[in-house]
Amino acid sequence: MKCLIIAAGKGRRLQQRGNSKPLIPILGIPLIERVIRAALEAGADEFYVVIGYRGEQVRDFLKQLAERLAIPITPLVNEDWEQENGVSVLQARGVLHEPFLLLMADHLFDPDLVRSLITLPLGDGEIALAVDGNTRNPLIDMGDVTRVRMEDDGSAESKKIRDIGKGLADFNGFDTGIFLCSPAIFKALEQSKEKDGDTSLSGAVRVMAAAGRAKAILTDEFWIDVDDSAAFRKAEQALLKRLRDKPGDGPVARYLNRPVSVRISRYLAQRDVTPNQISLFSFLCSVVAAGLFALGGYFALLVGGVLAQFASIIDGCDGEVARLKYQSSDFGGWFDAVLDRYADAFLLFGLTWHLLAASANGWILLAGFMAIIGSFMLSYTADKYDHLMRERIRAGGKAGLRMGRDVRVFLIFLGAVANLVLPVLVLIAVVMNLETLRRVSIARNA
Amino acid sequence: MKCLIIAAGKGRRLQQRGNSKPLIPILGIPLIERVIRAALEAGADEFYVVIGYRGEQVRDFLKQLAERLAIPITPLVNEDWEQENGVSVLQARGVLHEPFLLLMADHLFDPDLVRSLITLPLGDGEIALAVDGNTRNPLIDMGDVTRVRMEDDGSAESKKIRDIGKGLADFNGFDTGIFLCSPAIFKALEQSKEKDGDTSLSGAVRVMAAAGRAKAILTDEFWIDVDDSAAFRKAEQALLKRLRDKPGDGPVARYLNRPVSVRISRYLAQRDVTPNQISLFSFLCSVVAAGLFALGGYFALLVGGVLAQFASIIDGCDGEVARLKYQSSDFGGWFDAVLDRYADAFLLFGLTWHLLAASANGWILLAGFMAIIGSFMLSYTADKYDHLMRERIRAGGKAGLRMGRDVRVFLIFLGAVANLVLPVLVLIAVVMNLETLRRVSIARNA
Repeated sequence: MKCLIIAAGKGRRLQQRGNSKPLIPILGIPLIERVIRAALEAGADEFYVVIGYRGEQVRDFLKQLAERLAIPITPLVNEDWEQENGVSVLQARGVLHEPFLLLMADHLFDPDLVRSLITLPLGDGEIALAVDGNTRNPLIDMGDVTRVRMEDDGSAESKKIRDIGKGLADFNGFDTGIFLCSPAIFKALEQSKEKDGDTSLSGAVRVMAAAGRAKAILTDEFWIDVDDSAAFRKAEQALLKRLRDKPGDGPVARYLNRPVSVRISRYLAQRDVTPNQISLFSFLCSVVAAGLFALGGYFALLVGGVLAQFASIIDGCDGEVARLKYQSSDFGGWFDAVLDRYADAFLLFGLTWHLLAASANGWILLAGFMAIIGSFMLSYTADKYDHLMRERIRAGGKAGLRMGRDVRVFLIFLGAVANLVLPVLVLIAVVMNLETLRRVSIARNA
Repeated sequence: MKCLIIAAGKGRRLQQRGNSKPLIPILGIPLIERVIRAALEAGADEFYVVIGYRGEQVRDFLKQLAERLAIPITPLVNEDWEQENGVSVLQARGVLHEPFLLLMADHLFDPDLVRSLITLPLGDGEIALAVDGNTRNPLIDMGDVTRVRMEDDGSAESKKIRDIGKGLADFNGFDTGIFLCSPAIFKALEQSKEKDGDTSLSGAVRVMAAAGRAKAILTDEFWIDVDDSAAFRKAEQALLKRLRDKPGDGPVARYLNRPVSVRISRYLAQRDVTPNQISLFSFLCSVVAAGLFALGGYFALLVGGVLAQFASIIDGCDGEVARLKYQSSDFGGWFDAVLDRYADAFLLFGLTWHLLAASANGWILLAGFMAIIGSFMLSYTADKYDHLMRERIRAGGKAGLRMGRDVRVFLIFLGAVANLVLPVLVLIAVVMNLETLRRVSIARNA
């Protein structure tokens, strides 16, 4: 599906953040790149971007983005970018002859929103607008949003737009700025201009609504119009919030580590740091922590424990930054897992050494060894045939997968701080190996 | 595709091995079950079996096999089972009205052979016979095999059968007993009986060949007619030989362990032992070996080393028996891998303990720990995202995957026998961790 993106305006109210609005980075990625990435994910594969204010800058960026993502992006120039946004849409008249997606460079959204819009059957000469039906949506700037009045059109999937405009007193939804258009939109734009002297996109939608050709599809997915500094901050918060609900997170990760790591990721995303560098840094912190454990003495133990927990928190940032900046990769996930296994083993070995230095006792050695192997087995049992076994283990009770690395390192941290190393070592040894045994039994019965 | 199997004959020359030939087990599985399993794997999904001699026994077995495999198997009774095999084929006349696969209950074959036969486009009223073109095939009993004379039919996939029969002096292939038939075969059987008084299947093929309707497809896949004790032994050897060429086997597995484990599997397959029981037994042997290591003293070390290597050999039998007896399962592979990881760790911990008992030295502890974690990482790096990473590691040079468990345990064995425990521990620690590092670099560059 082709996709038209309007990126011609000046973005006056965000000028303190950058000269060209589409290029203003939010958590390290320019607005327009976020819009293109999300549309790509939703199924669009050919892009036309209307540029205007500081068009050269945007054009240069789009050129390198097209190369980087290996997708076609064609810039269309709107010399009259100071006029209403309908003029920008009209620039695409010559190139779009079939239904297309119409997006705004400053409206961020969840790809699922566009996915459901694309699947809507569009009649000849119709347009469809994604409308936010939540009139209390806190992400919306009530003073500036375009309002929509819809009524039932007899179908379950869509409604009929009656009117649209910023000043509408009687409304039941908000314009998300995300459209599925047939080329009929171009004619409506001209009619609106000729009849009412209105060159806005809303004007054209009003023309089509009057002809009964403007549909609305209700959505409750995430979207936000990044129009001023307040909206920018809200958008940042919304993007960060989505990182915190990662399925598969254990209790320590969810309630203790994520709230901190997300804040750190917000900082890191805006710097030139790759997720793999973060993984490596977290690993090195664990190695130093293990070394402090082995050094002996409570003070080193205490600092090591805190450092181990800090490393565990940082260990969440690699994935968060990767997701924020579209840098997720198979290698990244694998590399992180491999480093985590080494880190776990080093930490437990450090604790074992700490104890053995005080008293060379065979039972301590055995406890340390069993803790190391148990921790390993917990990862191994889920990761060997991971496509198959994770599901089975999950089906056998979620507790199993929650006994992850976050809990393990947190126990190490507590043991070090409370100077209760041996009990923690024994606890990890017993719990991890029992859980492995439980998994064998689950897998056998599945 | 429907499949007709002839299982009516007496099998006089194999009577010392069982009363009913189709039910004679070869490596623990009755001949007819092997034929049905192989046909199933090749794409057949509905079975008709002509029974005769000791028909009740065969019928009972087929009933429980149908339940066990959840496939339809219909027995057809041939009262005149003492006559030629064409009479048996005629029993299916009422039930088979479209092209079908025709097999003999005592002819074992590789599923690929049937797969290539099934894909042959069969003209209306034609039959096709899989013909072995290797006139020096050592699996063939030259005194008894049915010979085939073929000539070119102008196509690349098939040839034309000119004549068929046991006494043929001028021949260029052998009848494998594996046919793709149209129902025209039934008419040919009757014609052959009326004209020549010949009730054999070969007679019908001769009739169809005379009409230019008998094709041959050349094959070099495994097949064998299990007709007498000599053929039975050859078939056993051929099935066992196929176990020895497992892709992914390391050098110790291939040249030292497999030749021994295959012999043990031959014995175990004929007993009531499951692959998982074998995995568990091998694991317990490793645990005892580790205990002997920890005991201290050269004699315990020596016995432990030999036992560890024995466990590694037995560790091949679980997979071999599973493949021989169609008992492979996801759980089985996973369970074996999990036990192997524990076994590796125990063995290395046993060696470490052995050394520490003699001199409590931090370097020994470190070497033992690094050997344990390195061994683990070698499995983990290949098994995390196994669908993805194995290929990458393989692409980065086969040496990596060859550094498997077989080599590890063999080194342990050598170290114990030669009383060179510390050098072996250090060697394993260095090699395994370096290989892990190499894999990280391979995966990153992929």
